[in-house]
Amino acid sequence: MAETSEVFRVGLLGHGTVGGAFATLLEERAGAVAATTGLRPELSGVLTRSRGDFDSILEGSDLVVELMGGIEPAREYVLRAMRAGKHVVSANKQLLSQHGEELWAVARENGVQLRFEGAVAGVVPVIRVLQESLAAAHVERIHGIVNGTTNYILSEMARSGISYEQALGQAQELGYAEADPTDDVTGRDAAAKMAILARLAFSTPVHLDQVAYEGIEHITADDMAYADELGLGLKLIGTAERVDGGISVRVHPAFLYGQHPLASVNGPFNAVTVESDAITEITMSGPGAGGPQTASAVLGDVVSAMIPPASTPETTEALPLVGDVVSAFYVHMEVADRPGVLAQIAEILGMQGASIKSFVQRGLGDNARLVMVLHPLLESRLYAAVRMIAQLDFMRAAPRAIRVIDEDFS
Amino acid sequence: MAETSEVFRVGLLGHGTVGGAFATLLEERAGAVAATTGLRPELSGVLTRSRGDFDSILEGSDLVVELMGGIEPAREYVLRAMRAGKHVVSANKQLLSQHGEELWAVARENGVQLRFEGAVAGVVPVIRVLQESLAAAHVERIHGIVNGTTNYILSEMARSGISYEQALGQAQELGYAEADPTDDVTGRDAAAKMAILARLAFSTPVHLDQVAYEGIEHITADDMAYADELGLGLKLIGTAERVDGGISVRVHPAFLYGQHPLASVNGPFNAVTVESDAITEITMSGPGAGGPQTASAVLGDVVSAMIPPASTPETTEALPLVGDVVSAFYVHMEVADRPGVLAQIAEILGMQGASIKSFVQRGLGDNARLVMVLHPLLESRLYAAVRMIAQLDFMRAAPRAIRVIDEDFS
Repeated sequence: MAETSEVFRVGLLGHGTVGGAFATLLEERAGAVAATTGLRPELSGVLTRSRGDFDSILEGSDLVVELMGGIEPAREYVLRAMRAGKHVVSANKQLLSQHGEELWAVARENGVQLRFEGAVAGVVPVIRVLQESLAAAHVERIHGIVNGTTNYILSEMARSGISYEQALGQAQELGYAEADPTDDVTGRDAAAKMAILARLAFSTPVHLDQVAYEGIEHITADDMAYADELGLGLKLIGTAERVDGGISVRVHPAFLYGQHPLASVNGPFNAVTVESDAITEITMSGPGAGGPQTASAVLGDVVSAMIPPASTPETTEALPLVGDVVSAFYVHMEVADRPGVLAQIAEILGMQGASIKSFVQRGLGDNARLVMVLHPLLESRLYAAVRMIAQLDFMRAAPRAIRVIDEDFS
Repeated sequence: MAETSEVFRVGLLGHGTVGGAFATLLEERAGAVAATTGLRPELSGVLTRSRGDFDSILEGSDLVVELMGGIEPAREYVLRAMRAGKHVVSANKQLLSQHGEELWAVARENGVQLRFEGAVAGVVPVIRVLQESLAAAHVERIHGIVNGTTNYILSEMARSGISYEQALGQAQELGYAEADPTDDVTGRDAAAKMAILARLAFSTPVHLDQVAYEGIEHITADDMAYADELGLGLKLIGTAERVDGGISVRVHPAFLYGQHPLASVNGPFNAVTVESDAITEITMSGPGAGGPQTASAVLGDVVSAMIPPASTPETTEALPLVGDVVSAFYVHMEVADRPGVLAQIAEILGMQGASIKSFVQRGLGDNARLVMVLHPLLESRLYAAVRMIAQLDFMRAAPRAIRVIDEDFS
């Protein structure tokens, strides 16, 4: 235990929800940090929209914490801090998923650390585990629930049978969703996080623009009810995986069987599963966001930076991003209830190599609703089948397809 | 990426299941490690019971991996390696839970790293998360399923209604339990792991001898059936928590409600939940043991040691270990089926401040079986009540009490 406790000066950029929580937490835990590191952390300056001056904060700090969000001026400040030889801790997923390679290169060139645990899944330590525990592992796949807002909405739809709009309204009232929820509900927020995780897992450059994403706005209460009947739960799942010598990184709603480790993650929680031959599978879960939680992840990074270095190594792979992957699907169809309908649908499915795993049919007066789960097939072939089925004259609504994560957990 | 790849020499002590798997994995991943660290790891020597010489292995190594198990000569070798200025990676929970303070002190004095992720919960990165991500957090409590053998046995008893003896036999056939399963089924193995986790979480010295443990040998198929009826699942749970200015570290069977994050951890898996005000709760799970999995944790430590230091800081707290804690309980009683029985039991419970949360009674000819869940109370008072109830003349068998982890996860 250090008795003298030299001061370690922390400059803070941004003082919103996370920034404010970080300032409070830093003061509260300064004594404990001093006991662990021998250095007592102190806020040396705070930059907000209305006050503070970046140059003088930079000069007076040993480390800079960037919690402003957005691309500029965050990018410029982070670059300038690192070029001045300061370590940086950031929770800015947009910045890292779009300018990560530039930033990591500057960190390496200047021998400083750039840490970012808070950028993905809040306090769930997935960044550290990928960068350190699994630095030498051959990661095969990551599945993640990395957006708490959409997980809350889907959990509520499943729990109380309410519509997407009602669940979104509820999330907004409780502060789990913002007034403009676009980034969350379209899957773009999750896509940024998956780009960062894929970069670390596969040591290959991944930019947000390379991540295909699909949101949850089109999910209906009806899908949830059928899912329940089929023993499935619906989540917004981010996937980063090796496929045919390349990788696929994507975000979309997906059904999971009850035994899947992500199936029981409910409410505004995040969880990530990392698979590799040697480790089989690790799952980590916890609160995905919230000021104090993200602030805690940021403080963990600050403390690590105070002890010793770990830098993001250069990319050592240049893996192609694969567009078309294999998936199981749930398909929902409303048809006129007359003879020959199922035969025609089955013929189209067969042509595309799709085979039916489970099937529910229900009468609705003159119409019928057909819901089926298909065994895994190439997504391009499934969508070709869906387009052909949509043309059939007995269809009463556009057919809808949602992925099913169908793995053996027995 | 380093083109030259200098060699980093790894000396290996022990070549059993984990040692053999580590040697294989190291060779397999040497190229990836070189790409990440700029150094190419190579086995410089292996010590087994029948071959190898410690002195020459020590001299020829930059880092020593200890996978022998047991106290001596592992302790002597680890101490000598650190005194010679070498980093050490160990997966030896017995050694660390009994001689940890001595070893960590020598590591600090010699400025070397002693890493031990593989000692607790295999590849689940709980050591790193406690030492690094949560270095500045005020951890309130850890709950863990840290023994895969007992978790497999309990899962099988719950799943197929078989007896403890049958499930143990099955575990032995599948290689999940050893021929002599004493350390696992008595809870001693889990106690060693909880001692290590408590030391890291609370920065206070914790020795294996200070951990109270209770095993699963007395659990019956009948307990499992009642648990199911009451909506509970049974696990062997390790707990390390702050209590009244001190800490309590213990291992015992406990019932969990279905929503608890550990309730769905089945088979030979491990999982750990860490609670703290700022982070709320993180859960990590994965395969608890197995050669390749533990070897993977060991390799993660080796890679971290190749990059830069992280040392276990001195203990900064000296917290008393609290013996008597509050817990909810399941109580199972077989009584003669006659008037006044429940009244007498209820009176004793009332005297000890116990109140009933749920209750199941079932007739068995002239006898009746009473199963109840009690609201939380001091363990000493519960056991006093159980001793008094055992004296009642209408009791047909010794009453049995098992803890219930009763938390609000709504």
